[in-house]
Formats: sequence, structure tokens, C-alpha cells
Amino acid sequence: MAEDERTRDLAELYLRLGDDRLVLGHRLSEWCGHAPVLEEELALGNLALDLLDQATVLLERAGSLEGCGRSADDLAFFRDASAFRNLLLVEQPNGDFAATLVRQYLFDVFDLHLATSLELSSDRELASFGSRASREAAYHARHSREWTLRLGDGTEESHRRCQAAIDDLWTFTGELFESDPLVERLVAARVLGDPQALRGPWHDAVTATLREAGLKEPDQATLRSGGRRGVHGECLDRLLSEMQSVARAFPGASW
Amino acid sequence: MAEDERTRDLAELYLRLGDDRLVLGHRLSEWCGHAPVLEEELALGNLALDLLDQATVLLERAGSLEGCGRSADDLAFFRDASAFRNLLLVEQPNGDFAATLVRQYLFDVFDLHLATSLELSSDRELASFGSRASREAAYHARHSREWTLRLGDGTEESHRRCQAAIDDLWTFTGELFESDPLVERLVAARVLGDPQALRGPWHDAVTATLREAGLKEPDQATLRSGGRRGVHGECLDRLLSEMQSVARAFPGASW
Repeated sequence: MAEDERTRDLAELYLRLGDDRLVLGHRLSEWCGHAPVLEEELALGNLALDLLDQATVLLERAGSLEGCGRSADDLAFFRDASAFRNLLLVEQPNGDFAATLVRQYLFDVFDLHLATSLELSSDRELASFGSRASREAAYHARHSREWTLRLGDGTEESHRRCQAAIDDLWTFTGELFESDPLVERLVAARVLGDPQALRGPWHDAVTATLREAGLKEPDQATLRSGGRRGVHGECLDRLLSEMQSVARAFPGASW
Repeated sequence: MAEDERTRDLAELYLRLGDDRLVLGHRLSEWCGHAPVLEEELALGNLALDLLDQATVLLERAGSLEGCGRSADDLAFFRDASAFRNLLLVEQPNGDFAATLVRQYLFDVFDLHLATSLELSSDRELASFGSRASREAAYHARHSREWTLRLGDGTEESHRRCQAAIDDLWTFTGELFESDPLVERLVAARVLGDPQALRGPWHDAVTATLREAGLKEPDQATLRSGGRRGVHGECLDRLLSEMQSVARAFPGASW
């Protein structure tokens, strides 16, 4: 019975982590063929593929833990928005290039600290995922940090856009560190570190970058959440209807 | 003077090779976020990034040989269709998944033989490009060959679509091996092998796969060309207007 609960909890955790990467990877892939410079098209494309590849691994495991035979594809293409468990931050629309890179930076720093802490997980597969993901996140965070500096400390226009992106997105950053009964059980089982412990290092790193870029930390009281419970914005419905259209038009097609 | 001509010829060759990869890479990237299964989305995405990365290297060199200061981005985003030098094959629309994979296979086998022959080029940078591209093309050709077999030898529907794709695309394969005065000069200078010599190995490999997949080689007399002279189909105009829209909306933007 306790074993059953642990398996269910693990499945839900893999779903949360997988959905974060699936949704953000898809957002980034929307830049395919639309980036203004080849080098950045390649960089965003590589980033998207890293995240989508991580998502495939995580969702595959979520499906197998669930035990009802859903594959990663079933989970990606045949769930509605209310069944998605991703953070609200990652579903936010691309906006301009500054908004895309700021969203990425806020996530990457979180992901780097999270993945590093997962290396200590009592779930062996999660520990091994953590060691792969932390290497990739370190690279991603370097890239998105460089852009945040370059845009924040660039032209007047790029600074303005960058600050606007931070002001917009800040409201979604509280959710990164939220706890709930599932998280508490996983922390107790040493599957997961306490998410609250990630807040300090994340905040220190992000605000240091903002200062260096001449950007201001928003003094915002309202922090929004709900993604982990399936309460999403309309922007996720639109993303999913695009992402799922081909798979749903040919369900069960073997090609 | 002879040196000037050689430099101009080389610039044009790099443009041809770069445009093939830029256009095909862009076509593949159109699948981003629309593939019916995650694994194939990742595979097509990786293929697209390989080709776009090759294109960046080749166009960078084309621009530097031209000597008028155009970067790879200038060449990618600020030329009209008539200045593009790609093969007609690579600009053909994606169509369904079968058409995308057949187009890819026809190109990959050509690319594998071409890249291998470039390893012997008297132009040192082209030789080094050839050794990198032949490794990547071998991997690409394996993937697209597997799909051609799987679709050709799959369901009745997948077979029908695959045969239709071959019948449609075959008309563009003659151009792969065409010569013209530029090619003749480059062959004489040992920069390039004789393209006619690639036709036999390409045809043998492709028809062997078609046989194995239960598909028929079209008995087609008409072969179309013009891409190397800038005579393209409308489909290239549409591709470029999408690919270039963001860069042209913000010309010279540093972000």
C-alpha cells in the first residue's frame, strides 16, 4: 500500500517535470524558422531539442509508473490542458526575443538548482536524470544569462523590452518553489529536496544578473500559481491545440 | 586574374551547397511542433539543425570569398528567390510525412556521395567540410532509408503515399548531377569531382532501396532543373517570405 502510494507519487512527479520540459521545448520550437539570425535559430533549436528529449524520457517513465500503458506520445498528444502539470512560467507565450530569453533564464537557473539536487534522489532513475539535466541546464543557463545581460545592458529599446519581460514574468516565479502534500511526501521519502531550499540560491543568482544588466527586480506582491493542479492560462490551450493537431488527426497511425 | 576567377567560382559553389542545406533545413524545421510522435519530432529537428549548421558554415565562407562583406545572415535573410542557388528538390513543400522522408532520402544519398567526394577537394576548407558532412549524411541517409522501407513496405495507405511521393519528386533528381561551365571549371581545378560520376552510385543505392520497399522507379522522361540559375518554383518564394520575415522586419537589429 505504501509502495503503491510511492509509485503514484513518483508518476505524478515525473509528469510535472516532463510537462515543464515538453511545454517549454514546444514554445522554443515555435521560433524554428523565425529567428532573426541563424546562430540564434540554431541555439534555440538545440535548447528546444534538449528539453523535448528530456521530456520524452520523463513522460515515458511517468507512463510506465502509472501502469495503464500510456506512452510518452499518449501523454504528450492525448491529454487536455487540465491534465497538464507544468509550471505557468513555461507556458507563457514567446512574445518578443527578450521575453523568450528572460523566461528561459528564470527557468534555467531554477532547473540548474533543481537538477543538481535531484542527483541525490533516492529514486535512482531520477538521480541519473538529474546528473544529465544539470549538465544541460548549466549550458542553457549560461546562454540565457548572456542574453539577459546583453539585452538588459544593450540599447535603450532592448533594455526597455527586457525590463518589461521581467515585470510580466516575475508573477510566475513563486510557483517554482511551492510545496503541496505530494511534494511533502516526496521530500520525506528523500526523492526530492525541499523546494523552498532552492529559492535562496535562485534569487541570489537572478538578482545578481539583473543588477549586472542594469535591470530592476519587480517589487510585486502577487504571485500566481495553479499549474501543478492543472489550472492553466488560455495560452496553454492554444499551444496544445497546435502541438496535438497532427497526432489527433491520425490517432494510432504508425507513421 | 585566374585567381580572381577561382575565388568567384568558389564563392558560387559555396553558395550552391549552402543554399541546398539552408532551404532543406528550413523545410524540415517546419515540422517543429507538428510531428505526430515525439521521437520523430526530435529526429527531424536534429536533422534540421545539422543542415542549418552546415549552411551557416558554407554561407559564411561564400560571403567572405565574395569580398563585399555579406555575412551568412545577410545571405540567408536578405536575398530574393532568384538569387538562391539551391536544387529544386530541396525546396519542394513538405507534403505529408512520406513526402518529407522520401525527399530527404533522395537528397541524403546524393549528399553522402557528394560529401565523400569533397573530402578530396583541392580547396582545403571544402575537404574538411566534406569529411564532417559525409559523417552526418551517412547518419541522415540511414534514417531516411529506414523510413522509406518502413513506409513503402508498411500499410496499403503508407505504400500508396510513398509511391506518390517518389513519382512526384523524381522529376527533380536529374538536376543533382547536372553540369554547367562553372562546374566544369571547378572539376578541372580539382575542387569538385565530376557530378556525372555520382549518378551511378546514387541510382544503384536508391533503386535497391525502392526494390526492397516494394516501390517502383518512375519511368519518367522529363527532368526539371533551373535551381542553380535561380529559376525556382513559387514554393521557394513562400518559404523565404516566412523565413525572412522577422529578420527583414528588424534589419540590422542587434538582438
